[in-house]
Parts: sequence; structure tokens; C-alpha cells
Amino acid sequence: MASPSTRHEKRWKQPLSVVNIGLESFADSLNEQEVSVRQLDWRPSPADVPRLLYTKDGTSIDQANKEALQRMMAGRPQIVGLDLAKNVVPGMTDRMILHAGPPVTWERMCGPTRGAVMGALVYEGLAGEPEEAAEIAVSGNLDFDPCHHHQAVGPMAGIVSPSMPVWIVENAEFGNRAYCTLNEGLGKVLRYGAYGEEVYQRLHWMADELYPTLAAALEDSGPIDLRAMIAQALHMGDECHNRNRAGTSLLLRALGPSLARTCSDGQCLARVLEFIDGNDHFFLNLSMPAGKAMLQPIEGIEGCTILSVMARNGTDFGVRLAGDPDHWFTAPAGVVEGLYLPGFSEEDANPDIGDSTITETAGFGGFAMAAAPAIASFIGGSAQDALNTTREMYEICFGEHEHFTIPSLGFQGTPTGIDVRLVMESGILPKLNTGIAHKEPGIGMVGAGVLRAPESCFREAFDSVKSW
Amino acid sequence: MASPSTRHEKRWKQPLSVVNIGLESFADSLNEQEVSVRQLDWRPSPADVPRLLYTKDGTSIDQANKEALQRMMAGRPQIVGLDLAKNVVPGMTDRMILHAGPPVTWERMCGPTRGAVMGALVYEGLAGEPEEAAEIAVSGNLDFDPCHHHQAVGPMAGIVSPSMPVWIVENAEFGNRAYCTLNEGLGKVLRYGAYGEEVYQRLHWMADELYPTLAAALEDSGPIDLRAMIAQALHMGDECHNRNRAGTSLLLRALGPSLARTCSDGQCLARVLEFIDGNDHFFLNLSMPAGKAMLQPIEGIEGCTILSVMARNGTDFGVRLAGDPDHWFTAPAGVVEGLYLPGFSEEDANPDIGDSTITETAGFGGFAMAAAPAIASFIGGSAQDALNTTREMYEICFGEHEHFTIPSLGFQGTPTGIDVRLVMESGILPKLNTGIAHKEPGIGMVGAGVLRAPESCFREAFDSVKSW
Repeated sequence: MASPSTRHEKRWKQPLSVVNIGLESFADSLNEQEVSVRQLDWRPSPADVPRLLYTKDGTSIDQANKEALQRMMAGRPQIVGLDLAKNVVPGMTDRMILHAGPPVTWERMCGPTRGAVMGALVYEGLAGEPEEAAEIAVSGNLDFDPCHHHQAVGPMAGIVSPSMPVWIVENAEFGNRAYCTLNEGLGKVLRYGAYGEEVYQRLHWMADELYPTLAAALEDSGPIDLRAMIAQALHMGDECHNRNRAGTSLLLRALGPSLARTCSDGQCLARVLEFIDGNDHFFLNLSMPAGKAMLQPIEGIEGCTILSVMARNGTDFGVRLAGDPDHWFTAPAGVVEGLYLPGFSEEDANPDIGDSTITETAGFGGFAMAAAPAIASFIGGSAQDALNTTREMYEICFGEHEHFTIPSLGFQGTPTGIDVRLVMESGILPKLNTGIAHKEPGIGMVGAGVLRAPESCFREAFDSVKSW
Repeated sequence: MASPSTRHEKRWKQPLSVVNIGLESFADSLNEQEVSVRQLDWRPSPADVPRLLYTKDGTSIDQANKEALQRMMAGRPQIVGLDLAKNVVPGMTDRMILHAGPPVTWERMCGPTRGAVMGALVYEGLAGEPEEAAEIAVSGNLDFDPCHHHQAVGPMAGIVSPSMPVWIVENAEFGNRAYCTLNEGLGKVLRYGAYGEEVYQRLHWMADELYPTLAAALEDSGPIDLRAMIAQALHMGDECHNRNRAGTSLLLRALGPSLARTCSDGQCLARVLEFIDGNDHFFLNLSMPAGKAMLQPIEGIEGCTILSVMARNGTDFGVRLAGDPDHWFTAPAGVVEGLYLPGFSEEDANPDIGDSTITETAGFGGFAMAAAPAIASFIGGSAQDALNTTREMYEICFGEHEHFTIPSLGFQGTPTGIDVRLVMESGILPKLNTGIAHKEPGIGMVGAGVLRAPESCFREAFDSVKSW
């Protein structure tokens, strides 16, 4: 019997070389028949989809989005202090655990989030061991809630428990506040789902020595301008999501003199400085609430199709639109392509997790990767990939940032304000960079990489906009 | 009478459009005759000039240069301490003033160098007023000597007087040491030729409080690796000549814990941290001696045509070759194209000045500008100019740096090891960036910009190589 390709040759009188556009299943089918085929990465031109310009009651979406961008530009996030979560985070109770991403029950929680919850319960003294903590978690005797429901953001698992210290970031223009814990560093840390003595000890030191030392310095220094610091860091090779070396350095410079004036114990001060110097991600837990504080004022703008939230809990990826700010649109969290720490591989990886995509939502992070070519050594890829990512993200953003600029692009503003209309018109999904947590509780970080947001939550959000 | 262009039209039966290659005087002459002419920036191809490969006694120049590059790569410059110049700078005497660039007498000294000498004499207590200082300088009762004759480097006027504190940088691989004063900041400062109470007070505070505080911290910290710090800073948007924001930040991070442990006076520590935080050029006076320390080991390699020194005193520009390390080849210092501070213009500018071109000589600074696109806001030009500069400098360098890399160029090594043969073959002169001093003594900084090194000193150096 003739082979499939011979059959084709008989029919077409020559070997076929096929270029396929559209559904990949056609190409797959030809491939199975041993026909040479190249799949073209092509989508209908934006011109084929008429842009949605008005809501049903005639509100101009462009006007609404313009207003949103203006509010984002006017925002002036500042560090104004630190306190314990239970004292300042709105709605926080003694039995409440906040987590990253959209709402999720214990049953559907991924490994690292479960691990971080268990670790936090031991840290809080509510359980003696992680196993006991898991029983408490199962019991239903705890309230789980997304950070985003409490003006907070948390990287990776994003766990905030009542007695953890948090940064207080205030948007000086609008008066709204955002909260975030202090960054623990990389590796075997709670936010990557790790628990154990090493993790608890670090968290206790952070609460007992780091927090009061920083709080006293901040009272001496007064508010610290995070918008200026992020802008500077973007000129120093950070994108302020997975590269925060410059931001961390600038924070140390800004706090240094006040730390010197307020901390009379030189050994304590040295430990604080060494801890921060030893953790280039320290600034992440400030760039995140800065992004949140800049986005909160756009929530509730009628007809606004710009994303106010994009977040993942390790099980689901969720987005919220400024025009419908309490509505989560979710899809399964994606798989991260990345660089793995020695001894780990893709098989160990949990799906995409964390609130840190608030940085991309606010116009920096992955969207500003062109400013951070050296990030390739952490998340993989090349400098050209980083440049391409930023260039592509302009296609789905409503504007460019006035304050956050990219020197290598002639100081062009970063792509800012993800417009769900543009995402659906272009077929381009937001590109994110992220750390990777082990999928089992109790282990921690295994790598870092990049991925795209899943499509279906954007499609659902867009469909919902059509009914506005 | 017919106009010249009409005459041409008669001869050629049509209007002429001329492209001129080579001597510009042809184009000038046509221009005068109102003929449209475009001057082509063209030089004979390198293939037209056979490369000089051996000295007369048969030493391979490529082998010598390879050895030089290997020594530069092996160099590990470290901060090992601070002391007063008179205690540590080799050959320094009580009546000696070191200056930047090649040797120069008081009579030929430019305004800012004179101003800085006068200020230094008042600072040293050798004169009560600048006028008196000028008389002492004229008297011949002082020894002027280039920093480079004393294992030292000085930015701008580069004045080192006996009781100024200096950084001690040691190349851990070869044991050689280099010295440099502490950076005062920008504006009305001694190194830009300024004098007056503000200048003396700052210098005295630096000697009385900054120096001992840093020295004590350094004893606690042990040697600080400058090669690693420069490498990092190049990944954070510095080129470590006119942009040192990252380097300064990294230095503060490295010294912070030791400062905290050794300085028990919190107010003093706060002043030290504020001074350094307030001066993004603080790291320049460490990147310079680091460059010097990496270049010293190549001095004396027989047949080596790589530059070991490139420096300016504001009157002359001078270069030295590693194969003939005591011989200065000089040319008049060039005019800087740049950005001026409010109230100043090109008319106020002194010609090119300072030893800071040791950075370009060592493979960073202007040659690494592609790593520092944000420098455009300080020296003018665009990010593309910065990229082009680095790309062009590969043409005149013998190799690429192993440790200093540029993320946006796919982590390519910086162009390193200026080979006078390649300069003459290509006709491409080194491109430098620099601060600009006022041409009169006593005023200070007026701007910053870029320029090329003058040709004639390279031609003379190359002619001399032919006789080796």
C-alpha cells in the first residue's frame, strides 16, 4: 500500500510543501500524513473586528479609559509607615489568612499556598506543627480571603497572617492605601510555600527586629516617594517585578541616614542592612503595593475596560476590570517556561502564582522588560526577547506611562493600562515574568521564568463588557 | 557675468550634484561656487594599510597585546584602605601637587587646574587666600607632577595635595596599587577648578569625618571587590565614568553593615550616608583607580601597542603605550560638545580635562556607553548614540572584556585594549565622555558632554611604534 505522502504526490503530481494559516489541527493532520507543513502564526487583522466604543447607555469607553490613565499618572505612591497586618489591613481578623489571586477554597488551593498557610499558622502560634495546621485549615475554622479584597497584595502564595508586619503605601494624590508584607528573600521562604524552623525564625526576626527598626527610620525620614524610586530603578536595569536590585539599592540609600539616626544599636543596624543587602528582591514588596495604590483610584470608573487587577492563586488566574471592579474573571493558571534551580525541573513546578502581576497591570514589571535586559540571567530568554516583550505590550495597552520611561527606547513611556478590548482585538495576551514555586507544600522556590496570561478570562471579561 | 554655478552648468550641460570623497577642501571650493555637494565620511579601507605585526627585533605585537589583555582580565582591583596622600602615594612630598594628564608647567596650566591648585594650597594652609596661592605657584617653590607618575589618578583637574585622603586600590592578582582622592560631588568643587570657603569646608569635613569613618568601616569589612562592583554597575545602567549611580549604590550596600558596626555616632554616620547618597559620582573615584590598577601590569610589555594611559590636563591630551610606558605623546586638548548648566555655554568651557579617561583605557566608561542609555540626560545625545559609540569602539580595541559585559548586546564583553595600530588603520579615534569645567579658575562645573581624542598624538605614537 502506498504511504500517505505518496498518495498526495499522486494526486498533486509533486511533493507538497504546505503553509497553513489558522486552525493548527489542519497542520497536525498533514504532519501525520508526512507532508511538509509550516504553521503560520497569524490572526485576523484588528481592522476585521470593529472596536467597541460605547457602553449600551452611551458612555464613551475611550473617555473612561483616558480618565483611568490620567488617574494612574496622577498617583503618587509613598511609603508612609509599617504596622502589623491586624492593626491596619482593612477587615483583617484574628482568624483570617489572606492569599494571592482570586478567591480559592482550601480544597482547591495549590501546594505552595497550602504550605504557606500551614507555615503561617505555626508562625502565628495557632498550630504547633504543619500537620496540625493543615487540620485547622481543613476544619473551616479559618477565613481565607484574597489580598485584593483587603487593599493588599502578596507575592507568590501571598500569605498575610494577622501578626505579620506590613508596609503601608499611600497614594498621596487620592489618599488610598495599599499593604504588603516585607520580602523574605529567595529560596526556602514562606511565600514560595516553604515552612520549617528556618522559615519561622526568619519571619520572627523580621517582626521583632527588622520591622521596628524600619518603622522608626521611616518616622524619622517621613514619606518616601515610590513613584520616583520606580522611575529611577527602570533607568538602572530593573523592571521592578523580577529584577529589583536597583530598587533595593535606592531604598537602602533613602533610608540609610534615618536608620543611622534612629537605630542606636550598631549590631542590630548591621543585621538589618545585611538582610536587605542580601536580598535583591526586597523592593518587590514595595513596587507591588505602589502598583496597587496607583490602580485603586481607577476602580469604579464607569465604562472603563482597563484592568485594575491581574492576579493568580496558583490554581486560577484572575482579572478584574476597572469598570466592574468586584467581578473576577478566571481561568486555569498557566505553566511557566523558565530557568530552574539545580536539582529541579518543570515537573516540580506549580502553575503561575502570585499578586505580583499588579506590576504589569500598573505599567511596569514584565511590560518594562526592555529596561532590564540583564533579567535574562534570572528568568531565561535574551535581551532581544525582553525588548520584544515591551514592544508587543504596547499593542494591548491604552497608553504610555508619563513617569516610567525606558532609556534604551529613547525614554519612551512604558506600555500602561491593559485594555481588554485591545487584548481581544489583537489576540496578544499579556506577557508576565514570575518566580516558580515547587508544587508541593513545604519546599519553596525552584526557578523563574515567563508565560502569557490565559485567554479565556480575557474573553469572558470582554464578553461581559459587551453587555455593559 | 554668469554665476559660478551657471558656468558649471554650461560646461556639464546640467546642474551638478557632487559627492566628494576625501579632502574636504574640494567640497568647500564647490560650495563656494554654489554647487550642491555632499561630503562623504570615508577613509581608506583597513586593507589598504598593511598591519604592523612585528617590531624590528621580531617581537610579535599581537602576542604582546594578547599578553596585555590577559593581564587586564586577570586583574582583581580591590579597595584595601584609605590614608592621607602624603603617607601612601609613592614619591609624594610636602611641597608636591599632583595634577591630571601629561606634565604641564604653571605657565601652561589651564584655568581650572590653576584654580584647583590655588584652592588646594589654601586647603593645605600653605596660603591664606587664592591670590597668595597663585604667587606661591608662580614662585617655582612647588613641585607639579602628573598623578600618573605616582600610581594615582585624578578626575578633572585631578589635584592631589599631601593631606588629602585617598582610596587605596590594590590589584590582588599582581600586588600593584593605585590611588585616588574621594569624590566631592558636582558643581562648585575643587576638581572643576573652584575654590572658596564652601570648597575648603567640604574638603576639611571629608578629611576630618568622612575619611576616618570610611577607613574604620573598611578595616571591618576587609577588601571590597571593585571588578565585581563595576561588572554589576554595567548591568545597572552605569558606564562608570559619567554615570555612577549604580556603583555608588552598590558601594553603600557593601559598606553599610561595617559602617553600622564601626561608627557609634549615629549623627556622624547619617552625615556620611547623606553625603554619599547626595553624590551619584562618588563611585567615579573608585572606578578610576580600579581601571588604573588593572592597566599598571601591562606597562613594559615589550612590543605592546595597547594604550596604558590616556589623560588630559586641560591644555594637552596625552597617551602612553604599554610597550613604552614612560613616553607621553601629546596633542592640544579638544573641545567638548555637551549639555550646559543654566547660565553657561560653550564659551565658558575649558578644553577636555582629567585622568578619568583611564576608564575608557581599561574598557569601560565611554566605551561601555551602550550599557548606560540613560546617560543621555547628563551628557546629551541619544540612547542610539550611546549604542553606536560602543559598537564603533570595537573597531579600535584589541579584545573584549571577559568580566565587563553589556546585557543589551547579549552580554557581549566591552571593547577593551585600545590598540594604536587599529586607531590609525581605521581612522577611528577614541570617543570619550566627560564633565566640563569653566575655563576660568575659581568657578567650577559648567556641563558635561562627549568628544573624540585628538589624532596627532595617536599618529606620533604609531610612528614611534614603527621604530621599535
